[in-house]
Amino acid sequence: MAFSSLLSRLRSCSKPFCNNLRTSIIQRPHNPSSLIEPVICSRNGKTPLWFASLIPLAFAVSAGSLSLNDASLSDPKSVKIGGKGSTDYAVKGSRREVPPELIEELKGICQENMTTDEDERCVHGKPQNSFHKAVNIPDVVVYPRSGEEVSKIVKSCNLHKVPVVPYGGATSIEGHTLSPNGGVCIDMTLMNCVKALHVEDMDVVVEPGIGWMELNEYLEPYGPGATIGGMCATRCSGSLAVRYGTMRDNVINLKVVLADGEVMKTASRARKSAAGYDLTRLMIGSEGTLGVITGITLRLQKLPQSSVVAMCNFPTIKDAADVAIATMHSGIQVSRVELLDEVQIRAINLANDKKLPEIPTLMFEFVGTEAYAREQTQIVQKIASEHNGTDFVFAEEPEEKKELWKIRKEALWACFAMKPHFEAMITDVCVPLSHLAELISRSKQELDASPLTCTVIAHAGDGNFHTVVLFDPTKEEQRREAERLNHFMVHLALSMEGTCTGEHGVGTGKMKYLEKELGIENLRTMKKIKDALDPNNIMNPGKLIPPHVCF
Amino acid sequence: MAFSSLLSRLRSCSKPFCNNLRTSIIQRPHNPSSLIEPVICSRNGKTPLWFASLIPLAFAVSAGSLSLNDASLSDPKSVKIGGKGSTDYAVKGSRREVPPELIEELKGICQENMTTDEDERCVHGKPQNSFHKAVNIPDVVVYPRSGEEVSKIVKSCNLHKVPVVPYGGATSIEGHTLSPNGGVCIDMTLMNCVKALHVEDMDVVVEPGIGWMELNEYLEPYGPGATIGGMCATRCSGSLAVRYGTMRDNVINLKVVLADGEVMKTASRARKSAAGYDLTRLMIGSEGTLGVITGITLRLQKLPQSSVVAMCNFPTIKDAADVAIATMHSGIQVSRVELLDEVQIRAINLANDKKLPEIPTLMFEFVGTEAYAREQTQIVQKIASEHNGTDFVFAEEPEEKKELWKIRKEALWACFAMKPHFEAMITDVCVPLSHLAELISRSKQELDASPLTCTVIAHAGDGNFHTVVLFDPTKEEQRREAERLNHFMVHLALSMEGTCTGEHGVGTGKMKYLEKELGIENLRTMKKIKDALDPNNIMNPGKLIPPHVCF
Repeated sequence: MAFSSLLSRLRSCSKPFCNNLRTSIIQRPHNPSSLIEPVICSRNGKTPLWFASLIPLAFAVSAGSLSLNDASLSDPKSVKIGGKGSTDYAVKGSRREVPPELIEELKGICQENMTTDEDERCVHGKPQNSFHKAVNIPDVVVYPRSGEEVSKIVKSCNLHKVPVVPYGGATSIEGHTLSPNGGVCIDMTLMNCVKALHVEDMDVVVEPGIGWMELNEYLEPYGPGATIGGMCATRCSGSLAVRYGTMRDNVINLKVVLADGEVMKTASRARKSAAGYDLTRLMIGSEGTLGVITGITLRLQKLPQSSVVAMCNFPTIKDAADVAIATMHSGIQVSRVELLDEVQIRAINLANDKKLPEIPTLMFEFVGTEAYAREQTQIVQKIASEHNGTDFVFAEEPEEKKELWKIRKEALWACFAMKPHFEAMITDVCVPLSHLAELISRSKQELDASPLTCTVIAHAGDGNFHTVVLFDPTKEEQRREAERLNHFMVHLALSMEGTCTGEHGVGTGKMKYLEKELGIENLRTMKKIKDALDPNNIMNPGKLIPPHVCF
Repeated sequence: MAFSSLLSRLRSCSKPFCNNLRTSIIQRPHNPSSLIEPVICSRNGKTPLWFASLIPLAFAVSAGSLSLNDASLSDPKSVKIGGKGSTDYAVKGSRREVPPELIEELKGICQENMTTDEDERCVHGKPQNSFHKAVNIPDVVVYPRSGEEVSKIVKSCNLHKVPVVPYGGATSIEGHTLSPNGGVCIDMTLMNCVKALHVEDMDVVVEPGIGWMELNEYLEPYGPGATIGGMCATRCSGSLAVRYGTMRDNVINLKVVLADGEVMKTASRARKSAAGYDLTRLMIGSEGTLGVITGITLRLQKLPQSSVVAMCNFPTIKDAADVAIATMHSGIQVSRVELLDEVQIRAINLANDKKLPEIPTLMFEFVGTEAYAREQTQIVQKIASEHNGTDFVFAEEPEEKKELWKIRKEALWACFAMKPHFEAMITDVCVPLSHLAELISRSKQELDASPLTCTVIAHAGDGNFHTVVLFDPTKEEQRREAERLNHFMVHLALSMEGTCTGEHGVGTGKMKYLEKELGIENLRTMKKIKDALDPNNIMNPGKLIPPHVCF
């Protein structure tokens, strides 16, 4: 995971700090007009999205004013949020006015850091990077500055049974930050401090609104992106997960504001514990349906002494996948192994005026001591040559490595360069390693046969496979075709004991696949937990748990 | 983690298998008398306990016939289960007769694989390796052969509101397998099959009763020990956790029989997923209070090509701890780093007629390619020399490595060799890395000042610290002194943001520390989840969640 590796740069810092990392990219929140643009992680602005080492997914708690007994939960009337494929389980966006008393209470808590300005509410209610559509916007947007303020906000909302929607980088894909039932959007971006840096313990305590890139490069803000809180909420990961794990593996503890406004610590700061239920992991990936994350203690990893970046071409996608699998089997702890199909390479050539061979390609990163990084490179070069690999190249110098890795890093933007006015349906599935080659091959048959332009990128070491399907947003049949392809790939993955999402999360987009993947007993257990921790159902009733689940 | 590393030996096996791995060590279960001995992991039988690479902790679901509204839950009357320190929260062992209808139903489900024989019930009710005492024994012991049978058993027990106590290797330390309220003990040892081996996916699907050593050495059973199911239930780990993680990190999914007898799959077989709440992790470490684990899919790790075992002496325990920490900070992925104090070394000398210098000692294992394992050894040798390390020795040949590692492996038995008729209070705590040296130093001051013999072994790379306190079981003041020392170390660890248990679990023994460690909000959240998933409270009411917790 990039952040964990890169975070160790923080170790050169001698003491904890608390700064406004975003000052150069985000304006004061009580100035609505200036706030709008920076928070949008616009693809037109060429900001990298999901091809970064950590997929930036949003901190998402949408909600509903529905009570537990509300008929619409057990008998949902679907409304159009995105295309057909994404709406099967979408709860009808019944709107309830936020009472004036609540507005007054929120003003008392947040002072100037709140707004009911329509433009700003629109920004916060829009799906920024996803192909799902919004049916409502929040009624109020608040910008708490502390966990205590979040606690008070949630307590008030719970008393008035008004939905709360935490909001971070808003880079999610599956509709996590939508407010189908209006309510209060809690923008966490003012809570962006590093609270404590424990170099010797290899951990860092942060507030949720801090961006992952900001944290990594903490003195030179790059631009907006996913926040650490949102990354916890969606259990996100990326290309480095093959070595460093997902958010699940890199969080030591969380501070969480529960639905009743009480504040819970999920664990101690020890790196290992057998004391009690694993509430840290329960919160990670719960997509804000169980609580609002207000503090995070993250593990730090030492930046490796040395690294090598390598690239190799293959006649077929199966050869490339086989080499990725054989590399994993070899016992080498590769830090990245990324697979790009020929369409993706074509996009990269077009966007960058390059002349890479337009055939399936693997990219690797090896880390360790200088000698060990080189030794791993040689072992994998041999594996590749045994599977029809050609043109194996590698780089050891910083500038060369950066140049080579840029190919992978700019893959998504290269897709948009092919079709500048198109939208993208981005989906991800994940299967046991041995099925990856077949999954990609069969998916590609379907993708290649489609009139739409589709590219494939896989975090091949994890069996995690992404597709970018480009479609003309003005043509409904193209959107439907994109959704058909998504549907096809998810069901193919599920037939291989895989999951409907390896790292993007459920949101509204993947709810409909959960029963097939996990079974009704699993969903009932999730619902029981949800009901126990959020009896007024103010936390995201339209997300993650399909509304038909009852017990 | 040993099992994950060693498991990869399974990869040489060409197809899934299902055998009676325990046939040489366990007799048919409907022959009660022959069953008794093999199931006991007797320390007198010199079976390794907690110094193995995975600490064998039992599969534990004790239970109670108490209903949610039973006054004794919120107002417990403590009874003596072990010494004072371990009983603060022990639920009164109110006994309810198992109704004859339930016995008939169980016979219908298990046929000859059940017993009400008193000797056998006594064996299953006794704390095998812990210093906690039993106040009751189970009324029936059943030996299901499948998840379907477990489901039927639990369904029946739930209808009759009779406690269920899953039971595996019974090697736990904190009273997890006690039956303070009688009920039905579910011995899982007949469910010991490997259901599927997916070499290409690097995973294996097993039943819970399979032993970890049996699984690792699956064709040559070594002897009894912790079962995989129990290891999941207690979130256990060991010396290899510093590289391979704990059970939390090595389980892909679980099959769980819930309190109502329904069977739940916690996740798909993909190695990475963002689909839904992390019910796998919720079950791992829940100590059987939320369900009975009936199937496990484990990650496999490739056995490293090469390894080096090294040992080094230090003038002070602080020097040794500092080297362990500096090694972790160096970025080397050491596979083990174990710290032994001078008392422990003296015990080893006495037991094995050796002449090791009786001063603080570190033991390491480095893995990788041959060149890389050696390179890591050299780096750490340099670190050690900078911290007053002397007599750095290392071994590369299999026999030499085995001989060297034996010192660490037999540490616990060496303690008993010093005081053959004594009992041991074994405790573990875990703190952020930077506090380890101070924790051990201050603990040792207290231990050294005590009239009891106390040794220290630490999984130093994780900040995880064990103490073995030997006491004469016939002398109550010695038991009390052992408990005082335990109490002292736990509170010291908690004052350093640590945990009351890094890997042994809560059981009955550590419940009283949870509120100080986690706060009442955390405990209330656990209780809400427990009540939601087990409304009749048949699953382990006297374990893990302190009975005073209410909301």
